[in-house]
Amino acid sequence: MYKAGDVRVENVPDAGIVEPTDALVRVTRACICGSDLWPYKSLAPDAEPRVMGHESIGVVEEVGTDVNGIKAGDFVIMPFAFSDGTCEFCREGLQTACIHGGYFGNPAVAGAQAEAVRIPQADGTLYTVPSTKDDALLASLLTLSDVMGTGHHAAVTANVGPGKSVAVIGDGAVGLCGVIAAKRLGADQIIIMGRHPDRIELAKEFGATDVVSERGEEAVEHVRKLTGGLGVHSALECVGLDQSTETAILATRPGGSVGRVGVPQDSAIPGSGPAFSKNLHISGGPAPVRAYIAELLPDIMDGMINPGRVFDRTVGLDEVPDGYRAMNDRESIKVMITP
Amino acid sequence: MYKAGDVRVENVPDAGIVEPTDALVRVTRACICGSDLWPYKSLAPDAEPRVMGHESIGVVEEVGTDVNGIKAGDFVIMPFAFSDGTCEFCREGLQTACIHGGYFGNPAVAGAQAEAVRIPQADGTLYTVPSTKDDALLASLLTLSDVMGTGHHAAVTANVGPGKSVAVIGDGAVGLCGVIAAKRLGADQIIIMGRHPDRIELAKEFGATDVVSERGEEAVEHVRKLTGGLGVHSALECVGLDQSTETAILATRPGGSVGRVGVPQDSAIPGSGPAFSKNLHISGGPAPVRAYIAELLPDIMDGMINPGRVFDRTVGLDEVPDGYRAMNDRESIKVMITP
Repeated sequence: MYKAGDVRVENVPDAGIVEPTDALVRVTRACICGSDLWPYKSLAPDAEPRVMGHESIGVVEEVGTDVNGIKAGDFVIMPFAFSDGTCEFCREGLQTACIHGGYFGNPAVAGAQAEAVRIPQADGTLYTVPSTKDDALLASLLTLSDVMGTGHHAAVTANVGPGKSVAVIGDGAVGLCGVIAAKRLGADQIIIMGRHPDRIELAKEFGATDVVSERGEEAVEHVRKLTGGLGVHSALECVGLDQSTETAILATRPGGSVGRVGVPQDSAIPGSGPAFSKNLHISGGPAPVRAYIAELLPDIMDGMINPGRVFDRTVGLDEVPDGYRAMNDRESIKVMITP
Repeated sequence: MYKAGDVRVENVPDAGIVEPTDALVRVTRACICGSDLWPYKSLAPDAEPRVMGHESIGVVEEVGTDVNGIKAGDFVIMPFAFSDGTCEFCREGLQTACIHGGYFGNPAVAGAQAEAVRIPQADGTLYTVPSTKDDALLASLLTLSDVMGTGHHAAVTANVGPGKSVAVIGDGAVGLCGVIAAKRLGADQIIIMGRHPDRIELAKEFGATDVVSERGEEAVEHVRKLTGGLGVHSALECVGLDQSTETAILATRPGGSVGRVGVPQDSAIPGSGPAFSKNLHISGGPAPVRAYIAELLPDIMDGMINPGRVFDRTVGLDEVPDGYRAMNDRESIKVMITP
């Protein structure tokens, strides 16, 4: 990506081992993320170009001399952040705060929308899974790189639990995975807030019990009406805009929780007064998806959850620019890449 | 209070039973709250006058026909909010969200800076304690109306626990009680952030281990230096301003928690980006002090904690206007009233 709207497919020098803690992974599947659309809309013309992509599954080709837990030939999930697995924060399960960690898809660390990707801190970062040729399973495993773990994080930080009422703000791939996560954690009522018929349909199949398609005050009113006038116990903020965040805060009942996973596009959290007067819990951030794979993987392997269904288009590397366009135009929920 | 800076002592009609769920309490001790200073600074000239005060201990004179748990002669603590004790939120321990609850000291519900005060929902609101003539004990019991329970709420919502590092932002009565609460909950390191020598001294006696007197970025830098570069596990926001809230967010380490109890004076919570990138938990609000009395009272009766020490001046009703001035001018930490 060179600047907003300008994604090119180019030959670049092969990815390779740089640090002894690196692994080189040949990408089996990658994808485009809703968060990739923020730079797609706004990257400055004079920004340094970047190899985009922070989600992939693939086969390890080579490991550095200090890598012990991963070996060539392993089939692995690449979480969207790399982490050493041993620091204070990793041990607490917050790998996205790893002291030696970082993110993919920026000028310093190349991303996974490519034939191969260099993985720093491979021992702490990569998660080995059984190899498969099942397309549906590959798609679901790929969501453990980001969107399924992120939807789960929204639900966890919003304190979703058995019998709770939940509002999911945003019907993108993360919101849809939030519906899966809320249902999986035992929520009774799951209100999907969005307005794209195909996504709403999928949300219902994933477990949404109610739909709110209004925005702003009307949306809040509708949620209240659906919840006995009180609001939901848990709101999953899966957009990142001021309005969606305010909706999340206003639609949540006293003592309830808002889990934020939409990357915030503004400098302040709106609704300070209502959040305070209602004693809300506001939490969330970049999901430590590495920590969640062990919990979510069995349900994917057993077919209990099928988050891979959020992919509704598959492209080769050459078609990636059009994949960005399709997601940005809301033609596609989430685009998978087969390099 | 008629308007900003205009507090008068006047004869008004006697308080009395209005609803059958009311009790009438003769005030033994009341006080002026840091939050009373917000209207003292800003109440509009055309606002409806109000009998101020939301903290008192006293003797029940009379109860309504539907009051069963409280009787004339009981010595009681009046929490700063009234609550029915039976609704969904009260049962969850969030009495400040009671469906039939509300606050004292506004045009609709007269406050406790008076000889007597009408208590709505007396059964759910009042808490009977042993009568005493011990001045120090009276002062500490009075803090269970608000500041000690509120400091405890800041610590609870900021997830303070054994071994944790804590920053207390604000050296007013609530901040000082936050220090007591943090120490009581087992914190290892308690950093008081303030700049009034008398209050800092008291904070140290209450258990503060470090002092940060800078503001803004320098304050954050100093907290980081005191915590191995990472920031504190828990920040207690006991002021309510944008700058103090931002300091709380910036001084907290990834995965840490901010407990807000300072009444927010602005419409948004600053630091959305850092709060998100660090996966902070932001919580707090009006403390359900009614829920905390049972836990805190034994420690007061045993002399384990002495929150009444936050009172450094005592006035009669006639001197209340000067009490406001003294607190507003930072001459006094907290003013007690003996009607």
